[in-house]
Amino acid sequence: MKIYDFPTGPYPTRVRIALAEKGLQSRVRFVMVDLYKGEHKKPEFIASKNYSGTLPVLELDDGTCIAECTAITEYLDALDGVPTLTGSTPREKGVIHMMSKRAELELLDAISVYFHHGTPGLGPTVETYQNPEWGLRQRDKALRGMHYFDAVLKRQPYVAGETFSMADITVIGGLIFAMLVKLPLPEECEALQAWYARMLERQSVRNQPVFATLTRAS
Amino acid sequence: MKIYDFPTGPYPTRVRIALAEKGLQSRVRFVMVDLYKGEHKKPEFIASKNYSGTLPVLELDDGTCIAECTAITEYLDALDGVPTLTGSTPREKGVIHMMSKRAELELLDAISVYFHHGTPGLGPTVETYQNPEWGLRQRDKALRGMHYFDAVLKRQPYVAGETFSMADITVIGGLIFAMLVKLPLPEECEALQAWYARMLERQSVRNQPVFATLTRAS
Repeated sequence: MKIYDFPTGPYPTRVRIALAEKGLQSRVRFVMVDLYKGEHKKPEFIASKNYSGTLPVLELDDGTCIAECTAITEYLDALDGVPTLTGSTPREKGVIHMMSKRAELELLDAISVYFHHGTPGLGPTVETYQNPEWGLRQRDKALRGMHYFDAVLKRQPYVAGETFSMADITVIGGLIFAMLVKLPLPEECEALQAWYARMLERQSVRNQPVFATLTRAS
Repeated sequence: MKIYDFPTGPYPTRVRIALAEKGLQSRVRFVMVDLYKGEHKKPEFIASKNYSGTLPVLELDDGTCIAECTAITEYLDALDGVPTLTGSTPREKGVIHMMSKRAELELLDAISVYFHHGTPGLGPTVETYQNPEWGLRQRDKALRGMHYFDAVLKRQPYVAGETFSMADITVIGGLIFAMLVKLPLPEECEALQAWYARMLERQSVRNQPVFATLTRAS
């Protein structure tokens, strides 16, 4: 398998964490796509790898391309191995998918829109259209999202309940993106902060290249 | 099970189609939530049913609420019954989830943003903030998305390949929303039109309440 990747991107990091949790890294070859050069928006990438022009993309040995982190995680999780990231029972599957989608809507995707529209983003060559007002609204939405996930983590140890899952990885992606855009985690979100500290202790998380970048930048 | 529902909403219709495909309608009691009265944005609905303030929401007998169409479809599909809507093999699961997410990003969600920001949407009481420029950009994105899915359906019979799946239901949701906002399907999208005509022949699709509304309106 190949993964079209930008090692410090929050979305690529989601799939890198899933791979590490499943112990599947050795089966993947990473192919660098430079976001800051807009390589993911080039017509040939869009035509042959991912119509939506985003990373990461998993390419199977038969040439099939699978974009979107949730879809890639479903693929990897169905291959085999523990832990199960997308649930086993109907209820687990439903709740994990809901919480992961909610983490996209209310946190990760909102910060991504803020980055691309409310800040210089990937720079003027790549960001050919910006809507700053929309970007700032999404930043505020993400801050509310942090309070929501804080409330969730006050009553349970993981985002989707009693077990680590894809939903935790999505919130981790959101908090990584928040660090990259210097959106501080509100002090009063103590449960979210404690959960994030626990997540950063997991080998699958703390070994991600993005944290080297963040340490250098701080 | 209960489903918080608005019978003619494009997103609720996705779950109604999934239920009909699985033959599970008799196990569900529908509870009407009036979108035009903003009942889905009321604090008690947000606190107890769905933080994101959207429909549909599935409530299990133990009180667990599952929002988001993909998550509800995962739940229903894991219960039992044919057809399988979310795939069986890793490759099927990956491709179906990718194409369904792409149908949200590039079509259904884009039209929803156009409806809420580029048109009067649910009216001034519910639409307390609008960003018309963003809404119009999303309309144009959805029109490009129609051409993309037309190209997909030129080379294969269903959105995710050889079999009907959750991804078809998501595109159906997109085209229903397009009809509701009077965004015409481009004439040149012949493969998409032919596929949609086939979809409307399925009992699970043609019996949906939204089509009675659309017929009355035309």
